[in-house]
Order: sequence, then C-alpha cells, then structure tokens
Amino acid sequence: SAYEYVRTFEQDDRLLPGCWIVLRVDGKGFTRFCEEHKLEKPNDGRALALMDASAEAVMLAFPDVRLAFGESDEYSFVLPPSTKLYGRRASKLVSLVVSCFTATYVRRWAEFLPETPLLSTPMFDGRAVCYPNLAVLRDYLSWRQVDTHINNLYNACFWALVKGGMDQAAAHERLKGTLSSHKNELLFSEYGINYNEIPARFRKGSTLIRQRAEVRVKKPDGSWGVREKWVLQVLHVDIIGNQFWEEHPHLVEP
Amino acid sequence: SAYEYVRTFEQDDRLLPGCWIVLRVDGKGFTRFCEEHKLEKPNDGRALALMDASAEAVMLAFPDVRLAFGESDEYSFVLPPSTKLYGRRASKLVSLVVSCFTATYVRRWAEFLPETPLLSTPMFDGRAVCYPNLAVLRDYLSWRQVDTHINNLYNACFWALVKGGMDQAAAHERLKGTLSSHKNELLFSEYGINYNEIPARFRKGSTLIRQRAEVRVKKPDGSWGVREKWVLQVLHVDIIGNQFWEEHPHLVEP
Amino acid sequence: SAYEYVRTFEQDDRLLPGCWIVLRVDGKGFTRFCEEHKLEKPNDGRALALMDASAEAVMLAFPDVRLAFGESDEYSFVLPPSTKLYGRRASKLVSLVVSCFTATYVRRWAEFLPETPLLSTPMFDGRAVCYPNLAVLRDYLSWRQVDTHINNLYNACFWALVKGGMDQAAAHERLKGTLSSHKNELLFSEYGINYNEIPARFRKGSTLIRQRAEVRVKKPDGSWGVREKWVLQVLHVDIIGNQFWEEHPHLVEP
Amino acid sequence: SAYEYVRTFEQDDRLLPGCWIVLRVDGKGFTRFCEEHKLEKPNDGRALALMDASAEAVMLAFPDVRLAFGESDEYSFVLPPSTKLYGRRASKLVSLVVSCFTATYVRRWAEFLPETPLLSTPMFDGRAVCYPNLAVLRDYLSWRQVDTHINNLYNACFWALVKGGMDQAAAHERLKGTLSSHKNELLFSEYGINYNEIPARFRKGSTLIRQRAEVRVKKPDGSWGVREKWVLQVLHVDIIGNQFWEEHPHLVEP
Ligand SMILES: Nc1nc2c(ncn2[C@H]2C[C@H](O)[C@@H](COP(=O)(O)OP(=O)(O)OP(=O)(O)O)O2)c(=O)[nH]1
Ligand SMILES: Nc1nc2c(ncn2[C@H]2C[C@H](O)[C@@H](COP(=O)(O)OP(=O)(O)OP(=O)(O)O)O2)c(=O)[nH]1
Ligand SMILES: Nc1nc2c(ncn2[C@H]2C[C@H](O)[C@@H](COP(=O)(O)OP(=O)(O)OP(=O)(O)O)O2)c(=O)[nH]1
Ligand SMILES: Nc1nc2c(ncn2[C@H]2C[C@H](O)[C@@H](COP(=O)(O)OP(=O)(O)OP(=O)(O)O)O2)c(=O)[nH]1
Ligand SMILES: O=P(O)(O)OP(=O)(O)OP(=O)(O)O
Ligand SMILES: O=P(O)(O)OP(=O)(O)OP(=O)(O)O
Ligand SMILES: O=P(O)(O)OP(=O)(O)OP(=O)(O)O
Ligand SMILES: O=P(O)(O)OP(=O)(O)OP(=O)(O)O
Ligand SMILES: [Mg+2]
Ligand SMILES: [Mg+2]
Ligand SMILES: [Mg+2]
Ligand SMILES: [Mg+2]
Ligand SMILES: [Mg+2]
Ligand SMILES: [Mg+2]
Ligand SMILES: [Mg+2]
Ligand SMILES: [Mg+2]
Ligand SMILES: [Mg+2]
Ligand SMILES: [Mg+2]
Ligand SMILES: [Mg+2]
Ligand SMILES: [Mg+2]
Repeated sequence: SAYEYVRTFEQDDRLLPGCWIVLRVDGKGFTRFCEEHKLEKPNDGRALALMDASAEAVMLAFPDVRLAFGESDEYSFVLPPSTKLYGRRASKLVSLVVSCFTATYVRRWAEFLPETPLLSTPMFDGRAVCYPNLAVLRDYLSWRQVDTHINNLYNACFWALVKGGMDQAAAHERLKGTLSSHKNELLFSEYGINYNEIPARFRKGSTLIRQRAEVRVKKPDGSWGVREKWVLQVLHVDIIGNQFWEEHPHLVEP
Repeated sequence: SAYEYVRTFEQDDRLLPGCWIVLRVDGKGFTRFCEEHKLEKPNDGRALALMDASAEAVMLAFPDVRLAFGESDEYSFVLPPSTKLYGRRASKLVSLVVSCFTATYVRRWAEFLPETPLLSTPMFDGRAVCYPNLAVLRDYLSWRQVDTHINNLYNACFWALVKGGMDQAAAHERLKGTLSSHKNELLFSEYGINYNEIPARFRKGSTLIRQRAEVRVKKPDGSWGVREKWVLQVLHVDIIGNQFWEEHPHLVEP
Repeated sequence: SAYEYVRTFEQDDRLLPGCWIVLRVDGKGFTRFCEEHKLEKPNDGRALALMDASAEAVMLAFPDVRLAFGESDEYSFVLPPSTKLYGRRASKLVSLVVSCFTATYVRRWAEFLPETPLLSTPMFDGRAVCYPNLAVLRDYLSWRQVDTHINNLYNACFWALVKGGMDQAAAHERLKGTLSSHKNELLFSEYGINYNEIPARFRKGSTLIRQRAEVRVKKPDGSWGVREKWVLQVLHVDIIGNQFWEEHPHLVEP
Repeated sequence: SAYEYVRTFEQDDRLLPGCWIVLRVDGKGFTRFCEEHKLEKPNDGRALALMDASAEAVMLAFPDVRLAFGESDEYSFVLPPSTKLYGRRASKLVSLVVSCFTATYVRRWAEFLPETPLLSTPMFDGRAVCYPNLAVLRDYLSWRQVDTHINNLYNACFWALVKGGMDQAAAHERLKGTLSSHKNELLFSEYGINYNEIPARFRKGSTLIRQRAEVRVKKPDGSWGVREKWVLQVLHVDIIGNQFWEEHPHLVEP
C-alpha cells in the first residue's frame, strides 16, 4: 500500500560480527514480586529451579545459545561470534529470548510452586551486549558469578541476623563494610553455618551447557540401547577459574 | 569487583527525543502455532480477544502507552514524543513490552480458550521504531489497518472457497491478482456473505485507547455514586480517516 | 577476494528519515590556533570571512544544504527532512562536509589573511544531529545564536577592560555573574561603546541562505540581460524571532 | 539558555571497546579530480607521495594511530583496541582524521606537484569500522593490499595497451576475464615490462608505521650524538604474509 514507506524508518540494529553476544534478562521489580509471593529468603530453591527451567527452554528453542548463566532474578545467554541467528539483529534476539523465557516462567510456575498461586504478571527486561573476545566474555561471566557470591554471602548473614531476631536496619548496620572473611566467621561462630555447605546452587549460580552424554534409546527392533547425544546440563560450579573452561573446550569455539 | 569494567561494553540505545515511538510485537511462527491449536480460520475470535487482553495488560503496566493497535498475531504500542519511560532505551522498552504481553498471553490462555490446552510456548518478537511526526505515525497505523483489511478480505474469500470444497492451491489460483471489488462480489454472489457484515473486529482490527468514562464507585459512606475516570476501551473502527483522530484529540498531544 | 567478508563489519549509520539533519563543524583547538596566528581579539573579521567562504563552498558542493549558521570557530549546516544525500549515511555526510570545509579554509587562507602565513594545520571536528521537527530545529539555531550573543557581549567587555589596562584575571573577576544589561552599561559608560553598533557579523553570526536574485548575464547574442537565479547570501540578522522565517518560507519546506 | 535542551538530541556513537578501529578515508570523485589535474596514469608518484605525506600528518597529530595503509585515493588508519581517543566517539574520530588529512593534502599540494595548480577542492569521505580481533584486522589490511595488486596489475596492462595505440574500449575487452598470470605474461612478452620491477609503491601501496631508529641529535654541549627514537617510516612491502607482523611485534599489541 501507499503507506508502506513507513518501513524505511526501521533502523538496522545488527550486532557487530565476530563478537560474542550476551543476552541478559532480569526480573522487573522482583524485590516486590518475591515479597508478594512470599518466596523464601534469601534464596528460594523452587523459584531458582523455575528460572533454570525457563533458561533450558531458551536453550532448546535457540540451539545457537552456547551457554547460560543464572542467579537471583537474572539469566545471561551466550551466543558465539559465528552465530547468524536472526541476522544478529539486536531487537529480534533480545525480544525472542525474553519472550521465550517469560512464557516458560509463567507456563511452568504451578509446576515449581504448586502451593503458590501466581498473583501478578512476572516480567523480564532484556539487553544485548557484544564482547569482542573470549577473555572479556569470561570476565563478563566472572562478573556475574562474583556478584552471586557477594550477594549470597551478604544475604546469608543478613537473614541469619534477622531470623535471629535483629531488626533489618540493625542487621544492615552490623554488616556495613565487613569483609568476606568476617562474614564467613560470623556465620560460623554465631549461627554454626559453614558457608561452603550452603547449597552450591545458591553460592555458584546455575550454568547451563550442552554435553555429550549417553542416553537410553529404544531401537527400531524394540530393544533398548545406549546412544551418545548432546544433552542440556545444569551445573553449579565455579566458572571463574580455568578448570571449567578446560573441561569443556567446545564452549569456547568461535 | 575487578570485572565490572565489562559494563562499559553496553552501548547506549536511547531513541531520538521528540519522536513518536512504536513498539510492535508479532507472534513467532504463528502459522504453525495456530494450526497446532486448531484455531478457527481465518479469524479465531477467542484468540484475538486474548491478544486484546494481553495488549490491555501492557497499557495498564505502562501508562505512557497512548494507543495500541492489533490484528492477527501482532500488536503495535504507541508512545508519545514526550515519553521518558526507561530513558527511551530501546531494549528496555522492547523487552518489557514483549515480556508483559507474552506473560499475559500465557497466563490468560485458559480463560479465553478453555477447551484448548496450550501445547507449546507462544513467543513474540518485538522492535522499536521512531516516527518523527504525527503524519507519519498515522501513516504507520494506516499501513497496519490497510494490511488488516487486505489480509482479511483475501482470507474471507479463500476460506469460503476452501470450505465450499475447493482445494487450497485452486483457491489461491482463483484469487490471484483479483481486485478488492471482485472479492467483495465473489463473497456476496457465491456465498451470500456481505463483507461489511463480517465482525468489525476482523475487518478493522482492535484499537485500544484510554477514554474518560463514568464509572460506578462506592463512596466512603457506603452509598454508590458515579465518577469520571480514564478507562481502557477496545474499539474496532476506522483509524485511517480523520474522524477517529478528531474525536480523540488527547491521543495526538505530543 | 577471500578477504572481502570484512566489509560486513561496516555498520549501517543511516539517519532517521523525516528528520532535519544538522551537521556542525567546530575548529579543533582554535584557542591556540587563533593565538598562534595573532588573530584580532575577540573577533577577527578576516578569519570570520574565511569561515563564511568555507561554508559557502559547502553549500555550493552540496545543494541539499538548506541553510548554514556560523559563529566563532564553528558552522552548522541544515539539511531538510526530505534529503536523500548519500542515503543519509551519517559518516558520509559528516566527513564530506568537514573535508570540503577544511579544504576551502586552507585553500583560501592566503586570500583572506594575506599577511599571516599559515603556521599549523587547521582541523575541524564534525557531527550529525537529527531534529524531528521545525520547532526543535529553530531552537537549535536559536541556541547557537544566543551563544554568539552571550560570548560576544562578554568578550567585548573583557577585551575592552584588558585593552584598557586591566590584567586578564581581574577582568574575569570584574565580569563574573554580571547581567547582560550591566555589560551593555559598562561598555557604554566606561568605553563609549554602543554594543548595538558593533558589527552585526560579530553580534549575530553569519547566516547563509539561497535567495532568488536578479543577476546580470551575457546573452548568446553578446548583449547583457538580467535573469533571476538562486544565489547564496550571507546575512547577519536575528534568526531567533519569527520575522526571518516568515520572510524566507522556502527555508522551512520539509 | 532555555534552548540548551537541544543537546540531548545528540546520540552516543561510541565504538565498541576492545575492538581494533579502522578509519578509512577515500577521495571523492578522484576519477575526475585526477583527470582534471592530468595526473600520470595509472599511478602518479607525486600524488601518491602527497597522500603519504597527508597520512604522516595524521599519524603525527594522533599518536594513537598504530599503522596506516594507503593506495590509490584512499588511506586506512588503525587504532588499537585500547585507544581511548575522544572516548572512541565515531564522529569525532572520523571527522578529525578526515580534516587533518584534507588540510595537509591541500596545504602541501604545491610542494609535491609544483607545476600543477590546484583547480578544484579535493575532498575525502571517511568512515569508522570496528574489527574485534587481530585476525580480522589483518584480513582487512590484506583486503586492501590485494585490491592494490589487482587494480595495479590491471591498470599496468590497460595503460600499456592504450599507450601502445589500442583504444580504451578495446583494451578493456582484451583484458576481460584474464588471469593474473596472463596479465603478467602480456606485460612481459608484448611490452618487455617485468611486473615485479614496477615500483613497489605502486604494487604494494604504502604502509606507515613507527619504528625505533637512531637519529642524530645535537647535545647540550654543542657536539653531535646519536639517540634512539620512534620515527615514522613509509614502507612498500607485503603486509599479507606473516613476516611483516613478526618483524614488528609492537604493532599488534592490543
Ligand atoms: N526472597 C527471594 N528474593 C529473591 C530471590 N531471588 C531474587 N530475589 C529478589 C532479591 C532482589 O531484591 C531482587 C533482584 O534484584 P534486582 O536488582 O534485579 O531488583 P528488582 O528486580 O527489584 O528491580 P529491577 O526491576 O531489576 O531494577 O529479587 C529469591 O530466591 N528469594
Ligand atoms: N487460524 C488462525 N490463524 C491466525 C489467526 N491470527 C493469525 N493467524 C496466523 C495467520 C498467519 O499465518 C500468522 C501470522 O502471520 P505472520 O506473518 O506473523 O507469520 P508467522 O507468525 O507464521 O511467522 P513470523 O515468525 O511472524 O515470521 O498467524 C487466527 O485468528 N486464526
Ligand atoms: N582571537 C580570536 N579568537 C577566536 C576567534 N574566533 C574564535 N576564536 C577562539 C575563541 C575560542 O577560544 C575558540 C573557540 O572555542 P571552542 O570552544 O571551539 O574551543 P577550542 O576550539 O579551543 O577547543 P575545541 O577543540 O573546540 O574543544 O576560538 C576570533 O575571531 N579571534
Ligand atoms: N591518473 C591517476 N588516477 C588515480 C591515481 N590514484 C587514484 N586515481 C583515480 C583512479 C580511480 O578512478 C579513482 C579512485 O577510485 P574510487 O573508487 O575511489 O572512485 P572515485 O574517487 O572516482 O569515486 P568515489 O567518490 O570514491 O566513489 O582515482 C593516480 O595516481 N593517477
Ligand atoms: O538493574 P540494576 O540496578 O542491577 O543495574 P543495571 O541492570 O545495570 O541497570 P539497568 O537495568 O538500568 O541497565
Ligand atoms: O515478519 P514479516 O514477514 O511480516 O515481515 P517483517 O516483520 O517486516 O520482517 P522481520 O520480522 O524480519 O523484520
Ligand atoms: O566543544 P565544546 O566544549 O563547545 O562542547 P561540545 O562541542 O558540546 O563538546 P564535544 O565537542 O566534546 O561534543
Ligand atoms: O566507494 P567504492 O565504490 O569503492 O565502494 P565503497 O567505498 O565500499 O562504497 P561507499 O563509499 O558507498 O561505502
Ligand atoms: Mg537492571
Ligand atoms: Mg530485577
Ligand atoms: Mg537482578
Ligand atoms: Mg516479522
Ligand atoms: Mg508472526
Ligand atoms: Mg504477523
Ligand atoms: Mg566541541
Ligand atoms: Mg573549537
Ligand atoms: Mg567552538
Ligand atoms: Mg566509496
Ligand atoms: Mg574515491
Ligand atoms: Mg578509492
């Protein structure tokens, strides 16, 4: 039609070729959303498992996603430099990942939190960031995992103090400016909590990758066999050091 | 942490001030999604109503949205030149609107299609487009509504032919290159369908606006009264001509 | 060749259609450049005329430029919403205007400052800015002309004081926080300078436009005649008020 | 002033951190410009030397430029991933490099082509491109040098044929689709030209780098000594293979 010229106002938003792409989603106003649904503090295993399930759905829908890392109300999805998905158009990538994540989060809510009716509409924002090489991509992921650690250690102390009877303002005051070592010490000496025994999921976040694994398959003749396939795996491990990357060399192929 | 420098790789995506912003969402692979859920052809009133409900949720969550227009598997949301929502950051706007839309679509699916279990995950892509003045914004909306008309007239004929026993390829062949007037004629003379009596929702799409309306409210003393408020309205009217715009002058304020 | 794929790294930088485009160039380090060449303070008529000549060259080379406004070491070039010059690619527009301006500035230096050898290489930076409507474009131009006025009034006072024997720090101190009216008063009562009698070029900057004018032309038969043509004109007038724009309606056509 | 809000319309154009930046300038309409000034065909040593001198001026004005490569009417300037020059703002970088290059080209024209008055205003366009790693940066430079080779071999044959009396259309026809080896053969057998004896400047383009070199310096006591300094050097060598890069390891530091 004569109106079609309006398409020319759409601007090209292709992400620079040759770069790693990170798509990060983050829950909108989850401070309130978690309160409203009375999620466990500071970490609700069911809610985190739902986040992981939503991230899995993204990885299944978009096989180009190489790795995902999640913590709290956020998830980062990593696409390799070679990806041509949607011509690397930023808004296509961001919107579809956010949409897939959100849809799954809502769809499977009742499965993970069967006793908690969904009272409001969870939403996630999203963004795309380019990282030109593996070193800076790994720094990005380290940034997120360090953040997990810092927040989680703080929250562990904070809620220990609060559950122990301190009011929230006083708990904040008590923790202000303390070092990691002090917090570990406080948890152990005052509450008998060994920080390293807190579930790895809380301390390390969730890392989703594809791995070769043997899976049982039914053969044409009806008998059962074993075949190697790529399967999704959720790990709760350190991804800052080199070990993880050396163990999974396929993750870093450009 | 030492890794925080990675934030500097996030690039500024603020949309040009002074422009109208259109955020358009569109169902991913809805040809297949509609098949899979055996939606009525060519228009499923229940699915369209769910689209409208999802758009309403967006308008309630983001009061800056001035108007929305929907048809088929897509919806456009219009923000005025003056909006400062999320600093006009494109990815924030696109992702949050897509997320709100998708979440509502999934959450309320069972309400609108109670007999149709949701078999797969619906997803919507999204994009932001700037339009520098009202004339071109109206051309944008006209483009979408003309599209509605063209597709709907075609589909009405196509499915009339198919339901009348023609195979799909033959129906396509029969309609190739026909003018609007021929299609109207065909519908009427061969199937007794007066195109203008097809529901306006199908012919005109859905336009969501806010209007002043009288609503019944309970007063503090327990009695009922009437008060004027802004309420959302779904219209199925022509938005190409001037009449609609003259009747709703508040829509065009910059 | 096999290397040609590197072209795909060039990113699209087309400016939004439907907007006015301003290309502004500004001398790099002209504080030093003017010192080095001992230009008159605060305004050197010869240097400003060379700026105007360079801007004229831009307007001749790029007929799409609708209007230019210059002051001090800067010039702004205005292209209408309808321009398709270089597909509206920002870097093409910026670089070519800067290049044309710089080349002319160097080429014609000796013509305007015959007694002043060029001692170093003058350079200009450049940028492109989109303005979505005439009101904001006019505000842009008003911004530049108000700047001209403010700087020029200040400089007139400052150099009057300095030429009158005050040291520069004391002159700055004397003028700090003074209102326009005080500065006008100071100029008049202490130095007998009526600010409004300072050349309009210094007070109003230079505005270049195309106007219909009668020009003498030699006819084929050798006799002289008069013909109307578009010619460039340099004006030193107020462009903030409405009068200028009402007198030149062709300037504002989209 | 009240008009200052117009600054907010300037959009951020910072280039992605961590990438190599290439700024390429190219003569506007140099086909005509070279004709007009009757430059030697296919290569005019004086014009190429003026290009090199202009590129040297850029490297002196912007010490962050690591390397430059020029051929025909174009020059590419390479900035390392670590550069923070002008906050990596694309329009600042492009405009200032173009301006410096153009200004020098005009300023020094008479020095290099003393018998050829400058008849029109030379202009250069400019652009910025990001390359995320050294491999693709080297592919970029190889792309330009292969282009030099292909064009130069073709032009050498073409002008040999034309100077030998063939008309231009026939010469194009003769060369259409020929391989490199055929062209080498033609030059040698018909015109006695050994392609490899054509000046390296024409075959390899110009590469500007900084190198440590001993320079004679006058000491405070008036005697002469020798000191090591970084000096600019113009090379006409292969930059496609590894040798050049191995010999100059400082060029590739990020
Ligand atoms: N109780 C509880 N809260 C959680 C859990 N996971 C995340 N949250 C809360 C803690 C934080 O207040 C919030 C995440 O922080 P954000 O910086 O993303 O803030 P929020 O989402 O409120 O605002 P935003 O819209 O992202 O700017 O979510 C959980 O498992 N349990
Ligand atoms: N049966 C049925 N189909 C519908 C209805 N509304 C939309 N659709 C289908 C018709 C079209 O095939 C499709 C929308 O066209 P699109 O151009 O958006 O294509 P699609 O979503 O398949 O691909 P995309 O991912 O958007 O490129 O959705 C409906 O009410 N009933
Ligand atoms: N003496 C003299 N100076 C002038 C004249 N026109 C401009 N200038 C000087 C005054 C200012 O110091 C300078 C223009 O100010 P800018 O803000 O553009 O500063 P500058 O070019 O030094 O730095 P920049 O590279 O633009 O950030 O040029 C003139 O006619 N005579
Ligand atoms: N005679 C002569 N011509 C040269 C020399 N160096 C470059 N040229 C000419 C040959 C080409 O026609 C032209 C460069 O090709 P371009 O693709 O840059 O085309 P041109 O500058 O005409 O158009 P453009 O504005 O860049 O699109 O310059 C030279 O040394 N001698
Ligand atoms: O949302 P925050 O506060 O964790 O920080 P951010 O995500 O970097 O900020 P924004 O969402 O505004 O980009
Ligand atoms: O999706 P289509 O085919 O309706 O057309 P489009 O939306 O303009 O194409 P794209 O989604 O690729 O921008
Ligand atoms: O250069 P200034 O100081 O007049 O201010 P600006 O031009 O807005 O700053 P920049 O040149 O850095 O964009
Ligand atoms: O100018 P050309 O033809 O060598 O090719 P290009 O430089 O890639 O084209 P453009 O200058 O239009 O970007
Ligand atoms: Mg955030
Ligand atoms: Mg959040
Ligand atoms: Mg968060
Ligand atoms: Mg589409
Ligand atoms: Mg669709
Ligand atoms: Mg659609
Ligand atoms: Mg400046
Ligand atoms: Mg300046
Ligand atoms: Mg200035
Ligand atoms: Mg070109
Ligand atoms: Mg050229
Ligand atoms: Mg060229």
